[in-house]
Amino acid sequence: MVSNRQTALMGLARQTATFDSSKLTVTIYDDEETVQSRRAAFHRIESSLGLLDNMKLPHVYADLDREGLYLEGVRRARAITEDMLVHGHKHFESMTERYHMTNATPFGLNFLMFRKTIELQGAAMQKEEWLPLIDQMKINGAYVQTELSHGTFVRGIETTATFDRDSDGFILNSPTLTSIKYWPGGLGLSCSHAVIVARLITNGKDHGMHWFVVQIRSLEDHSVLDGVELGDIGIKMGYNGTCNGYARFNQLRIPRKNLLAAHVQVLADGTYIKNAGDDVPLSKRLYATMLDVRCAIIESAAFALAQAVTVASRYSIVREQGSPMFDESNAEFPIVAYKSQHYRLLTVISQAYAILFASKEFSQTYRLFVKQRADSNFSLLSTVHALSTGLKAWSTGIAAAGAEEARKMCGGHGYVAMSGLPEMVATVSAMPTFEGENYVMWQQLGRYLFKQVDLYTAGKEVDANMQEFLCGFNEYLNELSTHSVTGDLSEPSTLLSIYLYRARALLATAYREFTEEAEVSSKAEAWNSSLMAITAAGHAYTVYIVLRSFQSRVATAEANLQPVLSRLCNLFALTTIVSPTPSFYSVTFFEAGILSPGQLSSIRKSINPILEQLLPDIIALTDAWDFTDASLCSALGCSDGNAYERLMSWTRQLPVNNGNIVRNAWEGGLFPGRPYGARL
Amino acid sequence: MVSNRQTALMGLARQTATFDSSKLTVTIYDDEETVQSRRAAFHRIESSLGLLDNMKLPHVYADLDREGLYLEGVRRARAITEDMLVHGHKHFESMTERYHMTNATPFGLNFLMFRKTIELQGAAMQKEEWLPLIDQMKINGAYVQTELSHGTFVRGIETTATFDRDSDGFILNSPTLTSIKYWPGGLGLSCSHAVIVARLITNGKDHGMHWFVVQIRSLEDHSVLDGVELGDIGIKMGYNGTCNGYARFNQLRIPRKNLLAAHVQVLADGTYIKNAGDDVPLSKRLYATMLDVRCAIIESAAFALAQAVTVASRYSIVREQGSPMFDESNAEFPIVAYKSQHYRLLTVISQAYAILFASKEFSQTYRLFVKQRADSNFSLLSTVHALSTGLKAWSTGIAAAGAEEARKMCGGHGYVAMSGLPEMVATVSAMPTFEGENYVMWQQLGRYLFKQVDLYTAGKEVDANMQEFLCGFNEYLNELSTHSVTGDLSEPSTLLSIYLYRARALLATAYREFTEEAEVSSKAEAWNSSLMAITAAGHAYTVYIVLRSFQSRVATAEANLQPVLSRLCNLFALTTIVSPTPSFYSVTFFEAGILSPGQLSSIRKSINPILEQLLPDIIALTDAWDFTDASLCSALGCSDGNAYERLMSWTRQLPVNNGNIVRNAWEGGLFPGRPYGARL
Ligand SMILES: Cc1cc2nc3c(=O)[nH]c(=O)nc-3n(C[C@H](O)[C@H](O)[C@H](O)COP(=O)(O)OP(=O)(O)OC[C@H]3O[C@@H](n4cnc5c(N)ncnc54)[C@H](O)[C@@H]3O)c2cc1C
Ligand SMILES: Cc1cc2nc3c(=O)[nH]c(=O)nc-3n(C[C@H](O)[C@H](O)[C@H](O)COP(=O)(O)OP(=O)(O)OC[C@H]3O[C@@H](n4cnc5c(N)ncnc54)[C@H](O)[C@@H]3O)c2cc1C
Repeated sequence: MVSNRQTALMGLARQTATFDSSKLTVTIYDDEETVQSRRAAFHRIESSLGLLDNMKLPHVYADLDREGLYLEGVRRARAITEDMLVHGHKHFESMTERYHMTNATPFGLNFLMFRKTIELQGAAMQKEEWLPLIDQMKINGAYVQTELSHGTFVRGIETTATFDRDSDGFILNSPTLTSIKYWPGGLGLSCSHAVIVARLITNGKDHGMHWFVVQIRSLEDHSVLDGVELGDIGIKMGYNGTCNGYARFNQLRIPRKNLLAAHVQVLADGTYIKNAGDDVPLSKRLYATMLDVRCAIIESAAFALAQAVTVASRYSIVREQGSPMFDESNAEFPIVAYKSQHYRLLTVISQAYAILFASKEFSQTYRLFVKQRADSNFSLLSTVHALSTGLKAWSTGIAAAGAEEARKMCGGHGYVAMSGLPEMVATVSAMPTFEGENYVMWQQLGRYLFKQVDLYTAGKEVDANMQEFLCGFNEYLNELSTHSVTGDLSEPSTLLSIYLYRARALLATAYREFTEEAEVSSKAEAWNSSLMAITAAGHAYTVYIVLRSFQSRVATAEANLQPVLSRLCNLFALTTIVSPTPSFYSVTFFEAGILSPGQLSSIRKSINPILEQLLPDIIALTDAWDFTDASLCSALGCSDGNAYERLMSWTRQLPVNNGNIVRNAWEGGLFPGRPYGARL
Repeated sequence: MVSNRQTALMGLARQTATFDSSKLTVTIYDDEETVQSRRAAFHRIESSLGLLDNMKLPHVYADLDREGLYLEGVRRARAITEDMLVHGHKHFESMTERYHMTNATPFGLNFLMFRKTIELQGAAMQKEEWLPLIDQMKINGAYVQTELSHGTFVRGIETTATFDRDSDGFILNSPTLTSIKYWPGGLGLSCSHAVIVARLITNGKDHGMHWFVVQIRSLEDHSVLDGVELGDIGIKMGYNGTCNGYARFNQLRIPRKNLLAAHVQVLADGTYIKNAGDDVPLSKRLYATMLDVRCAIIESAAFALAQAVTVASRYSIVREQGSPMFDESNAEFPIVAYKSQHYRLLTVISQAYAILFASKEFSQTYRLFVKQRADSNFSLLSTVHALSTGLKAWSTGIAAAGAEEARKMCGGHGYVAMSGLPEMVATVSAMPTFEGENYVMWQQLGRYLFKQVDLYTAGKEVDANMQEFLCGFNEYLNELSTHSVTGDLSEPSTLLSIYLYRARALLATAYREFTEEAEVSSKAEAWNSSLMAITAAGHAYTVYIVLRSFQSRVATAEANLQPVLSRLCNLFALTTIVSPTPSFYSVTFFEAGILSPGQLSSIRKSINPILEQLLPDIIALTDAWDFTDASLCSALGCSDGNAYERLMSWTRQLPVNNGNIVRNAWEGGLFPGRPYGARL
């Protein structure tokens, strides 16, 4: 163990914790057994990838080009997949050894979406045929839906699968430039198979989008099959370890049995039939795979944010820089001592926990739904779907903004790749876009909430989870009164009321705006012109759910953890109201007179004492996530605090510093035609 | 000219403008002559770099590794520097042909900071020696201040320059690991010289930081001189066309005459003397170079943001995706038609103009200061410095958040490198950090404002620019009344009052908080515990200045431009209050009862009509910045709107798609030991 000023500071900061961080680790991963088995898996993988020596420059920083980044992605994906197969666990099914979503690897979508779609949409025989091949990685599949000109609006896709009676199969075709498939993970270079979304055409009739299992590369030599053009889409903001790709189909023939047939079939004469008793519209079926992935995204957002703030917290403990204005001591202070840094760090830490606990509560509801679905009971579907849209949009938005905030908290060094932060930010920044673009998600949630209000105003029964929320909603709709919150602002119940009243008030505002507008224009126009209000309402509803989930998890946490978690939960509630860091719509807390300017100032004042109480726990709160050094891949954020030596050591190991590059630049004359740089 | 659905949509959108965008171009670049001369320069450069064919994949997307990115940076830097030397202009002195700050190129700091420091801190003979070499690019210099452990706190730097009488010079040394210079642009691989900031030690006495001109590489073969270790710091989030570097000095000897000596000298016997009549502390001298660069940063932030939103606007016109909820027309809508997209786009456009106009007003004051300084009149220094901190922090924060917002507005395609957006976001994201970290800037502004309040309360004269602002400030300090704004919310003067009252109220709150706290604790503790309030006050003051500048530029704009610019200005003022996109502290508009919940709802309602009025001008407002296609370097954002064909064409040209990479991955067996990927 190295020992220097930085490691000493880190050691001290670790000792000040008011609670046992390993207990919190168990809370995060649900049970001790999972914690241990994950640790063992990480150790095996990091050892096989040569990542245990954290003074060695990680290969991903070795100045790689597109090919190098991809090959490194393949190498890592092999290691985690092999470990899951050999040791029979699923630790890397939705998150990688770097805590990225597994669609960041060339094999990840095989399980995350390819398998899942066949499982949910395939007929029994199809599952029998393909699932074992997937489970043993004998094939590797992509999920291919998005086209050059259609992502969000799936019904707009143009790829066709036309039934051809002579060959007893379909002919897959990309009729236009804009119909080229573009974006699917693993498609460009790595996948042998894919689930392709295409419009099914039989006997001249267009039946809209359906799923087809399609082989695209040879299993013998990995060459691209005739009738397919495949390619990579190049460097992206992040996710460069995988090959998001494009595909163009030119009259590719696929067997009839490859249409996923859990719900529909095409007979040998081209007749299109729905399976008996199946009346769920196909668009609803789409949710099934999506819901699963969304669950994974929400959870993943918590870990992504926690990683970034772990690096920022550790660095803030060991970086000493200047002293506060008016200070005469001549000593330098660790940057965590500056109130702004202290405030920003803990705000983001509280957000990571807020997402985590909200995700846990949601998963619980989701699991119940999956259980009921097995008995063809879909009663929870609309609730689960609505929650998934709001939580997906909220958590990914917060995580992306918070990760960038954490990066900025590391000053200049946070901008260098080896800090790990640029890649963390880039990776989490994709989340607001994929699997349901966030502004589109807010609308879906808004639609659900409006439907519930419709039921409520019609005196009909609303969904069980909305009953309490809509209780007394008429008062809001009719603007009968203001809804000011009174009571102690440090009481969880008071804080929850603030969020509840705000959510109701904003929903009422949006609903009124829409209804009034719909009287003078079309419903579509009214909806569109109320879009910002609808988004605000969905957002407020979601944050209310998040705070409620956070509070309920705190209430049931074990005694040792209660004080720190309840402080964190209150901090989350208070800073979401007044925070200067991106806090979507904070101004709305004043709508309907919910808070007064006086209360605003009390809220501000109450934050400093909580920050003081939480200061000694900053390291424990981030240690609790149990990130390995290799998973953070950060010269600034390793657990020992040895930031400067490591950053300098990694820098010296960079291939760019081997001297050749200067020679190559000089070769052409750095500045030809001028004395400087002209060769003598 | 290609003609397809997308180019047709773009053509239509260009026709709907209510004003002549070329007039606005002249406003942006100050005069017609500059517009023309810039255009000619861009054309020469783009033609010499082979960038005029916008269907050809730009080289920077050709899957480059660290070396390739740097060499491409060198190639481009040569072209723009050569053009300036040959054609005698300065169009690329502070911004490159991509509208990045020129510290993004290997030669940029030669002019931006190396020259500037010598000009301001050098004695006459020193200028005579070095400036001509710089101007003709016979040498290329870096500005080397930051060390591994010190950036913000410059006084903490550890590098020493010890006077050595025997050799009549200084010995430059890096005494510790943490003293290694780390970050300077161009240092790693490109510079022959540098201004190095080091502690001057003579006759055993430490005189603190001074500037030294130091040669670090041979001018004959570019090899690193003995006594210096140099290297690149590898891939960064952005700026990869240059070589931010590190340097360690091991007893490097430099001549005595290389100490920059405008203000101080070291005599042959080691005596340290200040030049007669020179009593400006050195820390103030630091501002001189910084102020210049900050001027450039503020301006640059406007262009950086405008570039990102130009791409997003053009893409939003040509991307058609789905239809609003309840719409039955079966037609697809361009995404700009969705109110959320429409709102976000115009909000960001208005921010880009707000930064631009604020920067123009500030530059005017700054030029006056520079003129006065020539006559040793420093009376504007504190004002100019204070404004520069606030505007730097505000504009870079807004630009970074807005560019990312623009990127997200392009959905999935905004995430691919070839959209140009990831690099735009990454580049602008460095700005909140360098040349004065933003949270540190807010404190400096706060310090200035507090000093002004001190003067005011002591009945002394405040700075000229603060007189109106502090007029009647006692009422705020004493909380004598609330300061509600009445009047028409579409009147510029009413809007400006909102911002003025808020800024006063927040400054009073911060000042009171600090003063009260300072009675029970030390001033340093009081300052630190009030940090968030101080930041909020500085922020509010700055936005007030920005809005005032925007309004005054609108008032003097030519008649044809007035309607569109005043709408944009009002939109900026209104959305900054209620916007859901990151709007630092929007909640504070309710402090001191400035706005009521009722007014909030009027503000919301008044936004939609302005958005409608501005819709036909979206393309003209972004065209006006006169960005060439090559400078945007974006498959989605070229002026013709031909987004899909170009994206697909560039994708097919990517080197990764030449087939080798798949063979290389396959070579090792994509998944060895399993049937899939095992070679036959
Ligand atoms: C890293 C990554 C991995 C991916 N992996 C896969 C994969 O494996 N398989 C696959 O098939 N696809 C994949 N995709 C594609 C992804 O699913 C789409 O990009 C995503 O669904 C967003 O759709 P879009 O790109 O069409 O965005 P768009 O819909 O074009 O969004 C652009 C803008 O338009 C706005 N907008 C669009 N519609 C509306 C509306 N109705 N109302 C209001 N505003 C609207 C949005 O808010 C946004 O601001 C991936 C994308 C990324 C970035
Ligand atoms: C792209 C790029 C180019 C650069 N080019 C050059 C160059 O050419 N030459 C050169 O010399 N340097 C260069 N730098 C370095 C740059 O000047 C520093 O990174 C910058 O000054 C920020 O300082 P820092 O890194 O020490 O941040 P830090 O001060 O370490 O900031 C880290 C965190 O601490 C907080 N903090 C620090 N001090 C205080 C305080 N007093 N009060 C409250 N909070 C505080 C900050 O808010 C921040 O959140 C460059 C950096 C970048 C990113």
